Amino acid sequence: MRDDMLSSILSELNGTSADIEASAVISIDGLMIASMLPQGMDEDRVGAMSAAMLSLGGRTADELGRGELEQVLIKADDGFVLMTNAGKDAVVTVMAKPKAKLGLIFLDVKRAADNIEQIL
Amino acid sequence: MRDDMLSSILSELNGTSADIEASAVISIDGLMIASMLPQGMDEDRVGAMSAAMLSLGGRTADELGRGELEQVLIKADDGFVLMTNAGKDAVVTVMAKPKAKLGLIFLDVKRAADNIEQIL
Repeated sequence: MRDDMLSSILSELNGTSADIEASAVISIDGLMIASMLPQGMDEDRVGAMSAAMLSLGGRTADELGRGELEQVLIKADDGFVLMTNAGKDAVVTVMAKPKAKLGLIFLDVKRAADNIEQIL
Repeated sequence: MRDDMLSSILSELNGTSADIEASAVISIDGLMIASMLPQGMDEDRVGAMSAAMLSLGGRTADELGRGELEQVLIKADDGFVLMTNAGKDAVVTVMAKPKAKLGLIFLDVKRAADNIEQIL
């Protein structure tokens, strides 16, 4: 039941934009809770890297006096990775194409993360 | 001479927007090359966290098939931290206020990073 609701939110998120290639909900210790990943993408790897980035991002925000972490964005040649806190226990990770409309993705992912937080 | 040119680029960058609170050029091993930081902000801490974030960001981009890293953005309650590669040996780190116009900051920082890359 909860799984279905999470999958439904991720499916809707991936559907909001053709620029979103993958999305996942991950526990803060890096374990996969729900995912919509393209074939061949390794769940464990997405989980581990998301948890590591969020953890270091949180520490960086703290050390540099920026308050509580909301999101970490990685921009690379072949696309974006956006990690967003969904409450205290989970992270929503989204991968998007290089030419993605970032403003729209920020908005859609924030909304999805709020919904996921209420379900977890 | 080179120090003056770097300081001049950072000074101009901080001047482009009232939302930019601090900027620094850091070697990829975390040592400060040039900085315009507000009083009380610790250089070593900015250097260490920037280098750590860029390093993990690069690995994440690689592991998740996103190609070569360009930027890492941290969004937190009390503001942003934006880290941008300036060539292979240095990072430009900028801190901005919570309500900063991100599009403009991305643009100005990318331009500054290109100039810094040519000087180093």
